[in-house]
Formats: sequence, structure tokens, C-alpha cells
Amino acid sequence: MKALLTPVEVRQLCRTGKLTTPTPGLANGYTQANLVVLPKSFAFDFLLFCHRNPKACPLLDVTEVGDAEARFVAPGSDLRTDLPRYRVFHHGELVEEVTDIRHLWRQDFVGFLIGCSFSFEAAMVNVGISVRHIEENKNVPMYKTNIACHSAGIFSGNLVVSMRPLLPVDAIRAVQITSRFPLAHGAPIHWGAANEIGIENINQPDFGDAVTINSGEVPVFWACGVTPQVALLQAKPEIAITHSPGHMFITDVKNQGF
Amino acid sequence: MKALLTPVEVRQLCRTGKLTTPTPGLANGYTQANLVVLPKSFAFDFLLFCHRNPKACPLLDVTEVGDAEARFVAPGSDLRTDLPRYRVFHHGELVEEVTDIRHLWRQDFVGFLIGCSFSFEAAMVNVGISVRHIEENKNVPMYKTNIACHSAGIFSGNLVVSMRPLLPVDAIRAVQITSRFPLAHGAPIHWGAANEIGIENINQPDFGDAVTINSGEVPVFWACGVTPQVALLQAKPEIAITHSPGHMFITDVKNQGF
Repeated sequence: MKALLTPVEVRQLCRTGKLTTPTPGLANGYTQANLVVLPKSFAFDFLLFCHRNPKACPLLDVTEVGDAEARFVAPGSDLRTDLPRYRVFHHGELVEEVTDIRHLWRQDFVGFLIGCSFSFEAAMVNVGISVRHIEENKNVPMYKTNIACHSAGIFSGNLVVSMRPLLPVDAIRAVQITSRFPLAHGAPIHWGAANEIGIENINQPDFGDAVTINSGEVPVFWACGVTPQVALLQAKPEIAITHSPGHMFITDVKNQGF
Repeated sequence: MKALLTPVEVRQLCRTGKLTTPTPGLANGYTQANLVVLPKSFAFDFLLFCHRNPKACPLLDVTEVGDAEARFVAPGSDLRTDLPRYRVFHHGELVEEVTDIRHLWRQDFVGFLIGCSFSFEAAMVNVGISVRHIEENKNVPMYKTNIACHSAGIFSGNLVVSMRPLLPVDAIRAVQITSRFPLAHGAPIHWGAANEIGIENINQPDFGDAVTINSGEVPVFWACGVTPQVALLQAKPEIAITHSPGHMFITDVKNQGF
């Protein structure tokens, strides 16, 4: 039933404290987003970091300074209440996890909403391509790579990738399909030999869960939304707030390629 | 002969004061860019304005604060010297036109390079579509519209469009071709009835020159790089520097669609 909720209904449940659990599977068909909140003093650098690394950080919306409403992708929303759970960082250290950030909000805060891979996974499943971590009911495996992002001001770091094992024929179709979703990380950045991008053991992801790679399948790697989180924590701004992993913001925008 | 110069050679001629004339036709095949220079205090708002209005303001490169090198699209360049001519604005008023801005450069300046339509026009000509203002050796006709841009902080304004008259069959091909150039304004924003977007007289452009519209042709409208200039002048920042019209920055990036 939760799959049939509208985005407005999900956000309202979050706002009233009735929903504090992960969002995968909720409001099916609508784009979910990563959240980053930063003071204005860091906002130019972070916006520039996203602009320079669009595959890792596809921007769905950026709020005006001090405004908590995502006016483009979710009119009427409130980023301070409409996610199920938030993480608060001081100088790059996690200090607390909360379900509401109204008491922390400042007039110099800017909210960034960054696309995630849920949109293109739905499109892959729709054409009959199996997505292993969904089949195995796991979190997608994610890896740190040796590929440096383009830095911007105080923000820098290496690219983090997610991996889906696919038969070569499905990998080719997956390139076609995900190319149509530039706001959900777009086309893969690599396939095949994991060591070429600095991954030593494909069975030991740095984030998420290992998944089965069957005979004949190749690992296919996409830029991942954990990348800006790593850059954020390395930069150690005085304060930053993000969604808690898996506890995303649900926009009014339908999952659809161009 | 000037068509055969490399981008580095053109920039060197500008840097040494030997080239102070318009750039169309120079270094054929390479992407030319509009320049906007602003203090850091306005840079977040302007970057966000460009991000929210990507058809009018496709960003090719943004410099680090205080850095005059366009490191992504023209390594080794110097935005203070490598354009033939600049315009300097104080509080939205043109105060001087110069060929070098080294004496004006500040450590809080940020440079923005914005794509222009030369790239897609070359692609249209290459497939045999006639581009009227090129045939008639004129500047492209440009019009103010009644379409509001998405504002960002202090920056707002209506969309400015360029117009090329085309037969319907060529207009359709032009949509296909220009869609492949998102960094050169991409696909058109309108075709047909000019009054629907607030243009009263197609024969009286607000900028550039009127061109002949032959029987059977429809006007086709693209978002235009004059849009951010209008938004910039309306916002009246204490200081802003741009290229002089037609006196563009030549990047090392080849004109090519994705």
C-alpha cells in the first residue's frame, strides 16, 4: 500500500512524525533525492563541485538561501521536516541523527537535492533486466575508486561508484537506458576489470552489501551519490546536514528518462 | 587564414594586444564562449541562475575564486587578457570598454564561461540547412520575450531568444541537431507564432539584425546568451565584466554534439 502513496502524502507522514523509516518502495514511480544542507558560505563551492561532477552529483533542486522549500521539484515541501531521518555533522563528524531539523535551521542555510539511482533501476527492471541487489533484497554494493573528482574550493575527493553485475548484452542495454537518466547518475563510468579503477576486492564493498556475480556477468559501475557525502565530510564544514542513508526526500517528479 | 589559427594562437594574439576585433570565423571548429566576471559575493546566485536556466546559460567552465585560468576548457589561458575586448559595468551601467582587465582583476573575482550558438550553427550548415543571418552576412536577430527565467537570489529577468527562419522540414532536423548541443543552448524553445512568446514585430529585433523570412518558412526560436547579460545588468552588482558583443573567448573544446 505504501507504494501507492503520493509524494505529498509521504512528505506529510514525515512532517507529522509518522514515518521515520527508509523510503525505497514508497510512492512508486516518483524520483527520490539525496539531501545536503550547508551554510551559504560553503554553498558556492559545493554548487560548483556538483556542477563539475554531474554524474556523481546530479542536481535536482537547490533552494534559495534560508528557504526550506524545494520550489522546483516539490512545491509546498519543507526540507526541515519532510524527510524521515537526518544526520547532523559538525566539522565532518556525525553528532546526531534526528527526525526533524526545524530547531537547527538557520537563515543562511541552502538545501541541495541530488538525484539517486532508484530512477534508472526502475527503468532497467521495467525492460526485464535483473538488478541483483534488488533480487537479493540487499543494499547496492558501493566502492571507493582511485578516480579523483574535479575539486571545487574546499570540496574534493575520489569518486564512489555503485555496481550492478550484468551479462554483456544487458550491460549494453543498461548503458542505453541509463544514458536517458542524466539526473539519476546517467551512463556507467566503467565496466569490467574492477582493479583498473582502484577496487581491490569486488566482494568487499566499502558501503552497502556484496552481491552474487554469476558466471558470464561483468561488473558495471555507475557514479554514486555517496561521492558528495565523502567530499562533504573531508571538507569538514562547521555544520552540514544530510538525509540518513536510505531515508530520502521524495519529489513530485516522475521517474522518467528524457 | 584566421580560420586556421588554433585556439592557443588566437588567445596569444589577444594577450599580446594584436587581436582586438570580433571572433566569428576564427579558429574554426572550436567552441567560443561568452564571459561573465563577478565578485564571489554574487557568484553563488549567478551560478544558481545558470543552473536553473541551462538553455539560456549553458556553463562551459567556472573558475575558482581569484583564478583567471579556465582550467577545464582552456588550460594555460588567462581570462584577463585572452579575449579581444571587454565591457566593464558598475551597478549595471557600462563604464568602459577595454582590451585587457589585468588592472581591474580582484582576488574575489569568479569567471563564468557560457556556451553560444556558433557551435550548433556550424552543425546545421554542415548538414546543408541554410542559416539566414550567415547567408545575409548579418548578426543573428534576437528578441526579448515574455517568458520569465527562473530567478536565483538577485538575478532575474525574461528570456532573450535568437531566431532562425526555416522550412518546417528543416526546423524538425534543426531540433534533432541542436538537441545534441546542450552546451550551445540545445533545442529550440518555440517555433511559429512569435506573439505567443511576447514578440510583437518579428522584423524589429531587440538586438542584432532583422533577416529575410521567405514564404513557407517559420521562425524558430532558441534561448540566447544575452539572457544572462540582461539578468546581470538588472541585478546591478557593484562590478561586473563581460566580453564585448562578438568578441568571444575561444576554448580548446571542439564543436561537437554528444
